Amino acid sequence: MRDNYHDHLDAIGDDLVEMSRLVAVAVRQATTALVTANLQLAEAVIAGDEVVNELYHSVESQAYDLLARQQPVAGDLRVLVTSLRMVVDLERAGDYAVHLAKIARRRHPASAVPAELIDTIVAMGQTAERIANKAGRVIATRDIDLARELLGDDDAMDMLQRRLFTIMLGGGGDHGTEAAIDVTLAGRYYERLADHAVAVARRVTYLVTGEHRDEPALD
Amino acid sequence: MRDNYHDHLDAIGDDLVEMSRLVAVAVRQATTALVTANLQLAEAVIAGDEVVNELYHSVESQAYDLLARQQPVAGDLRVLVTSLRMVVDLERAGDYAVHLAKIARRRHPASAVPAELIDTIVAMGQTAERIANKAGRVIATRDIDLARELLGDDDAMDMLQRRLFTIMLGGGGDHGTEAAIDVTLAGRYYERLADHAVAVARRVTYLVTGEHRDEPALD
Repeated sequence: MRDNYHDHLDAIGDDLVEMSRLVAVAVRQATTALVTANLQLAEAVIAGDEVVNELYHSVESQAYDLLARQQPVAGDLRVLVTSLRMVVDLERAGDYAVHLAKIARRRHPASAVPAELIDTIVAMGQTAERIANKAGRVIATRDIDLARELLGDDDAMDMLQRRLFTIMLGGGGDHGTEAAIDVTLAGRYYERLADHAVAVARRVTYLVTGEHRDEPALD
Repeated sequence: MRDNYHDHLDAIGDDLVEMSRLVAVAVRQATTALVTANLQLAEAVIAGDEVVNELYHSVESQAYDLLARQQPVAGDLRVLVTSLRMVVDLERAGDYAVHLAKIARRRHPASAVPAELIDTIVAMGQTAERIANKAGRVIATRDIDLARELLGDDDAMDMLQRRLFTIMLGGGGDHGTEAAIDVTLAGRYYERLADHAVAVARRVTYLVTGEHRDEPALD
């Protein structure tokens, strides 16, 4: 049991970094499960989310506890309040990896991803993984330049999502309604996962600079 | 300019209630725009989101200001921290109404919703509107029974989304990939909008009961 106030703050930061790492691993595995129709891997991602959820509750309890008992002053207060917002984003990002894995599970033994879309889905998975890992580094280091870099990665993700729809609508092969639903949802899940990780970086920027512009992306 | 601390807290509450009301109106109008291919209404929803965003910034500034200057104690602190989390949910719920309106705009003058899906989309719109309005009442009244009622409404929304996919996959009429993408996204947007409004009610429950279970829905 840690007694020191700043040890508690550090523990919260460590938990947030660990959540980012777990999300990055989950989205990589979910992508592999999707494109290779790997049921076992899909199940592992789904079960693994429990750890992310436990970290969510741990951060939340610790933060509320410190808020209630310690009457933190300005700087520390801002860290705690921001942590309570970041932890929601990371928990939600983890859910999106689970959603992706559930598509793989639902379509097993078939693959949910038509052949001509695999490259784009793989690229989306890699981009999401990179963004989640960078979000963790931003939390750990408070490196604002890295946080800014994440916005560019997010643009790349949006382009990939558009490419996904363009290829689907180009209809080189019409794969039917089921594939259209699955791929549309998958594209959306990658985009949302990335968006939540970018929101984390934006909140860290707020912490460091004090700028009030930690608004969520508006579209 | 209000000086009194509790006046500020009340003002934050009023803004959150107003955001809920605006979201309810926006999702009703977006639904009409979708099923009737009404471009003017779609544009009104998209432009109207500016007001929701302004309220978001207003709540955020006020809350951070009070946190920084007033050193609030336990109960008030909890209200402020919870408000900072609720305002994100409401802003995001507003974005989903905009996303719906943008589908209508993109497909104008055609309707994005095939005839056999209109009933379900209208029902999703009504359910989302009801949930957003109830979320506002929960914020205003802190009525936990009403908050609990919202969970049932959320189940109804999930059922409607499943019905949407079932009808699409039943394929009474195959409307092609574009309709499949649009309807899949629309269904998802309604479900997410409702989920954010329900999250607001859950956070109010936490405020009143002190129970730490204000976790986001996990799937």
